Amino acid sequence: MIDFEALYGISYGLYIVSSGNQNRGNGFISNTVFQVTAEPPRFAICCNKDNYTSEFIKSTGLFAVSILEINTPQEIFTRFGYKSGREMDKFNGINIRYTENGVPVVLDHALSFIECRVENTIDMDTHWLFTARLLHSEMIDGSLQPITYQYYREVKKGLSPKNAPTYIDISKLKQTTMKEDKAEYKCCVCGYIYDEAENDTKFENLPVDWACPLCGAGKEDFLKL
Amino acid sequence: MIDFEALYGISYGLYIVSSGNQNRGNGFISNTVFQVTAEPPRFAICCNKDNYTSEFIKSTGLFAVSILEINTPQEIFTRFGYKSGREMDKFNGINIRYTENGVPVVLDHALSFIECRVENTIDMDTHWLFTARLLHSEMIDGSLQPITYQYYREVKKGLSPKNAPTYIDISKLKQTTMKEDKAEYKCCVCGYIYDEAENDTKFENLPVDWACPLCGAGKEDFLKL
Repeated sequence: MIDFEALYGISYGLYIVSSGNQNRGNGFISNTVFQVTAEPPRFAICCNKDNYTSEFIKSTGLFAVSILEINTPQEIFTRFGYKSGREMDKFNGINIRYTENGVPVVLDHALSFIECRVENTIDMDTHWLFTARLLHSEMIDGSLQPITYQYYREVKKGLSPKNAPTYIDISKLKQTTMKEDKAEYKCCVCGYIYDEAENDTKFENLPVDWACPLCGAGKEDFLKL
Repeated sequence: MIDFEALYGISYGLYIVSSGNQNRGNGFISNTVFQVTAEPPRFAICCNKDNYTSEFIKSTGLFAVSILEINTPQEIFTRFGYKSGREMDKFNGINIRYTENGVPVVLDHALSFIECRVENTIDMDTHWLFTARLLHSEMIDGSLQPITYQYYREVKKGLSPKNAPTYIDISKLKQTTMKEDKAEYKCCVCGYIYDEAENDTKFENLPVDWACPLCGAGKEDFLKL
């Protein structure tokens, strides 16, 4: 028996994992970054195989991780978490530094970053689990506090994007109810569907400051289907 | 160049990873537990090869993870983090439940637990990285908040035990200074050495509520060497 709520107590940070080179690179929001050995310092990260960034990690064997701060704006999560680098240059307008090895690092809203070289790639069906040696680590702004996934979920009302290891299909958690006179509204930013039949509140009766539970967009970004 | 402080922003929870059977089992404090895929739900954990619990995980292929709550007392961290199950029965006096597969689960100060079956064992030199399928997850007390490693470090002044993936040898971070007229004091609980030569304060001048930075024991638990 699996109770998904029992998994919510597991703590994660939020990071931008980036890879590529000075011509082309990409990054995505990750919550699964952890240190696996101290001597030598090694890290493990988990990437959905469909992520564009995974291709760069596989081809270069290198990646960076920017550790995001608590006041990281929703725009960063929307850009790096809910959009694909195949369709846009996510680095456009973002402060990027390139390491000596040419790996792009996102500096905006990062308190520090690490750079790693992949040692092992483990096939996890939908994801790659990369284990990697720490090459470089550096503070960017030591006065900043890291954001946790719990904070993002509870305070910023964010949910995992579909490619995340911790994604939960919320439709599975709810009973479908009668659909008469109920409409659906789609978020133009991330594609989330607000289904009145699955909620007790009609969309028009939601408070004006209501935000998309998936990406934080406002009511004005929703279209009736 | 590696700046260890740059790693402090990576977020972790604190857990008791347990394994064994109804005759003999063991558990240890871990901060490296994370979900690696959603479909099917899989987790990864990292265990020092020297940990007694690693032997049980290797022999049974099963483990449980108790997610610890924010008010978990230091006694739990001392027992499960700084002592070896080879020298004591860590479960003595602790509320344990056995799963259908016979895996012991620590219930004290746990808000929920998961039970997993190992799929892959990756050799990380000093540690094993286990990837595992989620068999069972269950809430124990949903009103509790999870403790984070950052909270433990900043509020409870705890440090990683020597077997942890995130262990940092603090002696490496400090310059050795003149040792004249300086004494050493050893913590009888965890073995931590307070070296006056490495600190600006003589042991006798430390405040009465000063606690061992490693295990939280009081001044009275220290012996002059």
